[in-house]
Amino acid sequence: MSQRPFSFGLSRRTLLSGLAVLPVLSGTFLSVSASAQTAPSADRLSSWNDGAAKQAIFDFVRATTDRASPNYVAPEERIAVFDQDGTLWVEHPMYSQVVYCLDRVPAVVAKQPKLKNVEPFKTVLSGNREAMSKLTMPDLEKILAATLSGMTVEEFNAEVKKWLETARHPRWKRPYTELIYQPMLEVMRYLRDNGYKTYIVTGGGQDFVRVYAEQVYGIPPEQVVGSMGGTKLGYEKGGKPFLTKEPKLLLNDDHAGKPEGIHLMIGRRPYAAFGNSIGDQQMLEYTGAGDGARLMMLVLHDDAQREYAYGPAQGLPDTKVGTFTQALYDEAKKDGWSVISMKNDWKRIFAFE
Amino acid sequence: MSQRPFSFGLSRRTLLSGLAVLPVLSGTFLSVSASAQTAPSADRLSSWNDGAAKQAIFDFVRATTDRASPNYVAPEERIAVFDQDGTLWVEHPMYSQVVYCLDRVPAVVAKQPKLKNVEPFKTVLSGNREAMSKLTMPDLEKILAATLSGMTVEEFNAEVKKWLETARHPRWKRPYTELIYQPMLEVMRYLRDNGYKTYIVTGGGQDFVRVYAEQVYGIPPEQVVGSMGGTKLGYEKGGKPFLTKEPKLLLNDDHAGKPEGIHLMIGRRPYAAFGNSIGDQQMLEYTGAGDGARLMMLVLHDDAQREYAYGPAQGLPDTKVGTFTQALYDEAKKDGWSVISMKNDWKRIFAFE
Repeated sequence: MSQRPFSFGLSRRTLLSGLAVLPVLSGTFLSVSASAQTAPSADRLSSWNDGAAKQAIFDFVRATTDRASPNYVAPEERIAVFDQDGTLWVEHPMYSQVVYCLDRVPAVVAKQPKLKNVEPFKTVLSGNREAMSKLTMPDLEKILAATLSGMTVEEFNAEVKKWLETARHPRWKRPYTELIYQPMLEVMRYLRDNGYKTYIVTGGGQDFVRVYAEQVYGIPPEQVVGSMGGTKLGYEKGGKPFLTKEPKLLLNDDHAGKPEGIHLMIGRRPYAAFGNSIGDQQMLEYTGAGDGARLMMLVLHDDAQREYAYGPAQGLPDTKVGTFTQALYDEAKKDGWSVISMKNDWKRIFAFE
Repeated sequence: MSQRPFSFGLSRRTLLSGLAVLPVLSGTFLSVSASAQTAPSADRLSSWNDGAAKQAIFDFVRATTDRASPNYVAPEERIAVFDQDGTLWVEHPMYSQVVYCLDRVPAVVAKQPKLKNVEPFKTVLSGNREAMSKLTMPDLEKILAATLSGMTVEEFNAEVKKWLETARHPRWKRPYTELIYQPMLEVMRYLRDNGYKTYIVTGGGQDFVRVYAEQVYGIPPEQVVGSMGGTKLGYEKGGKPFLTKEPKLLLNDDHAGKPEGIHLMIGRRPYAAFGNSIGDQQMLEYTGAGDGARLMMLVLHDDAQREYAYGPAQGLPDTKVGTFTQALYDEAKKDGWSVISMKNDWKRIFAFE
């Protein structure tokens, strides 16, 4: 088990470099959007262009749900897993949950004023982007621990919900929950319509993602697998029990932690797995190691105009958020995984377009 | 987190006293029974006698599923949790999983011959019941760690499955998976028929129970919450990934660990909770602390003739397996939990009767 209390797949020191483009605190008050859910029915992947990626999805579903198929899969065995950051929603310039944690620092310091002059909180409060971008991983872990634990589960849920209503992405000026990839929502719905149980398997915090997963993705809390913190049962004076979030990491659900988290939370090997980075590699390998027809897909961020383009596999700089290496690309080609080109395979990126 | 690698709710030194009545190794080969599943439809609780307990179940289902009810619960929120040992199946004279671990000792020693003369393995191999009944908790934990970890997930599943086919309960001479309480199967089915998702929340090993839960209870692996061990991803020479069970306890799913495990694995507060001992107390309290109509039930083992009678709440000796204290009984009465008398409330205990 990792010694780090929190990590959320943050393995590089330069993660915070994206800070420069972020607003300090969230803006106006709007309700969480569920626009994607109310979009016109799209169960035939209408936001996808025809091509190998779309075809691979159709072929997989046919192979595993047609009773006459040699690769037919019983309904109870139909499990599909989806990474979140960079696979279901925008991860640039920074993971939304990291933005949340930074945004929470003033409230945490207000409750514990002695932190005001203690690093790394002092730097975050200063609003100095240059200084913030130089925060180290141990600094960031202190911020995550301080902002993701110490409150009851209900308090945490309420705080995240409130933040989601007010925070805006710096580029689109929209709530993060609107920056969901419409083609992926269609894949999830299409799989569910064909008897698949869809799970999120994210390096992000399990409790964080659960707050909005049902509304945004149609995925209930019990189907969200993420980095897991411990909780501790306590009792109010009247005897009423409550759970407090502890700064204790039970599982870092990234890289090898993804198959481990899948076994822990689901107990079955998935038939389909979707990711976009080296953090998803082991999950796709684990999925592909099963018998019969399996579907492994990687989203390639190659659309700087409509979204972003990044990663060594395209000869672009490694931005340390959602790293897609050449080795991962080679493995995909060798093992028959599908690479989804955002630029070529997706007719539309967001529901609001 | 507990320092103990494994515990399964075993908190008393005298747990092994029940050993005297157990066979050393399992007997003849038979397939796992699914008799309960193929029993005649019983969705109206036909194995229950009329009375307060049966009525409480009907009242709860009506209150939470009738759209006109002030306590109506949306289908996606309908969660019911069931302890296993002593609530769904027989736990005397010893938890079945402990029997499994003891039965596995010869195979473990065969692979690691140096353990042959090392305690506590030496004592288990001797077959000396008197000596075995004096094994301490640390002894037992060594046995659990040695028999529940170090193999791949697939190897473990195969071993448990094979054991279930051959092991027999010392009293009924039947597979443990036939010693399921028929009235509880009917409650689970009745709740599912009314939109409830049924979960097992056991102090036993999550991976152990998952092996047979779908066949025996109709509960899929992803709805089994239990004491959780870690796994570790490795790769075969050809590059194929596999998971090995590690001697590392992530969560001891007993007492306070039950609400903590429910939050971790389900992320919602249950509306109904069933247990039979002080290990279930916190889970029932946590369930009862929610708003609206909630159902908390405790099985009281008061039928020495058809099953067993034990526990301080009845002025009987504390057998240390499934302890039902007077304090728990008083709390049930005070908080409106239902106590199910096996003797009076259950017309039939097992499907084979």
